Amino acid sequence: MKKAVVLLSGGLDSSTMLAYAREKGYEVYALSFNYGQRHRIELESAQRVATSFDVAKHLVIDINLREIGGSALTAEIDVPKDRSQLREDSDLSEIPATYVPARNTIFLSFALAWAETLEAADIFIGANAIDYSGYPDCRPEFIQAFENMANLATKISVDGTLTFTVHTPLMNLTKAEIIKKGKALNVDYSLTWSCYDPQFLNNRYVACMKCDSCLLRAKGFKEAGVEDLPYRQAGE
Amino acid sequence: MKKAVVLLSGGLDSSTMLAYAREKGYEVYALSFNYGQRHRIELESAQRVATSFDVAKHLVIDINLREIGGSALTAEIDVPKDRSQLREDSDLSEIPATYVPARNTIFLSFALAWAETLEAADIFIGANAIDYSGYPDCRPEFIQAFENMANLATKISVDGTLTFTVHTPLMNLTKAEIIKKGKALNVDYSLTWSCYDPQFLNNRYVACMKCDSCLLRAKGFKEAGVEDLPYRQAGE
Repeated sequence: MKKAVVLLSGGLDSSTMLAYAREKGYEVYALSFNYGQRHRIELESAQRVATSFDVAKHLVIDINLREIGGSALTAEIDVPKDRSQLREDSDLSEIPATYVPARNTIFLSFALAWAETLEAADIFIGANAIDYSGYPDCRPEFIQAFENMANLATKISVDGTLTFTVHTPLMNLTKAEIIKKGKALNVDYSLTWSCYDPQFLNNRYVACMKCDSCLLRAKGFKEAGVEDLPYRQAGE
Repeated sequence: MKKAVVLLSGGLDSSTMLAYAREKGYEVYALSFNYGQRHRIELESAQRVATSFDVAKHLVIDINLREIGGSALTAEIDVPKDRSQLREDSDLSEIPATYVPARNTIFLSFALAWAETLEAADIFIGANAIDYSGYPDCRPEFIQAFENMANLATKISVDGTLTFTVHTPLMNLTKAEIIKKGKALNVDYSLTWSCYDPQFLNNRYVACMKCDSCLLRAKGFKEAGVEDLPYRQAGE
């Protein structure tokens, strides 16, 4: 069975991608990060999703990106709300404050290290350049450059044992297309989490429905014609 | 004053490079990692060196590469001793067990994140392809590929604010040349540490003098005609 390292945030994109990798016949090694993000619910969602798809292993690595700062997701900067212009193209003129410096570079670097140890040639990341927030490290040119670097960086690629491929099966899908694909693969989206700025009320997390991530999710479900009712009550 | 992020292990290469960056007029932000290496003396050396060169900040990031494994430096694998063939070229046919999967990729990724937050265009890594252990992520082709990737990965480069450069001032120097350069820059090598497998005896660390890193250090000091006597007693 081919092994793959799958980056899993617990959001709907990476959860759909995990289901896709399983369907393609991979033995999945799911990798998540406790990186100083504001809310534990992201990691709890990742754990629930990993369990639901019976992964070979789910590794959560602690890295403190708060020490580095520079983002609304890891520092005391407000998460932007009700942005009228959600990105629908690759224009990068207005990258929002939720951008985390070099986050995908760091995540992919750990994925590469684990893949080398496992002798897994395939790494999956749920990067998407359609319905996204305009982060530079979600674009195909970044992914290609990372893959090139990875194959020069590692013993296992340089000695000819294998060549790493960074897969981005969601890159050119709209959020609605991702959701339809996930539904066909039996993803239980009530296990997933998207909100950047949830409230913890009455012992449960409630999504803000105003941040980019909530807005993109709501738009996607609406366009896919799928209900997302349990989302706001996640974490019960 | 130009800012630079300098990767500092506490060994003689990175300590020399830090001195070099200071001499070139950079305000230095030194970055070290507590990555599950076998011995704390590496980090203590990094702290002593950072202090001796009056850096703007010294950040130590905790990342547990032991969870990923795959190396004699982070797992229960023996450190190779008395290797007859120390690398003196770029032949990668025999990368030793001290190789840590994707280590420089991970270290440079954090350096990139910090550099972006600081708006520092310059990153220094003490990679060396002459007197080295044959690690693939010390070669110039890897560094070039990382730099290309970095400039596609980050908001600050993509929006045109700056272009990152990964500097490797030691790349083509022999160990003896590095030591001579460091002596000219007043590096106190008794603050640095090299041994991969020290013994802790009588309340001090004692270098093994048999691992690649000790052998390369001894050869370098000998060729440079410089005494390295306090080295084996470091940590007193």
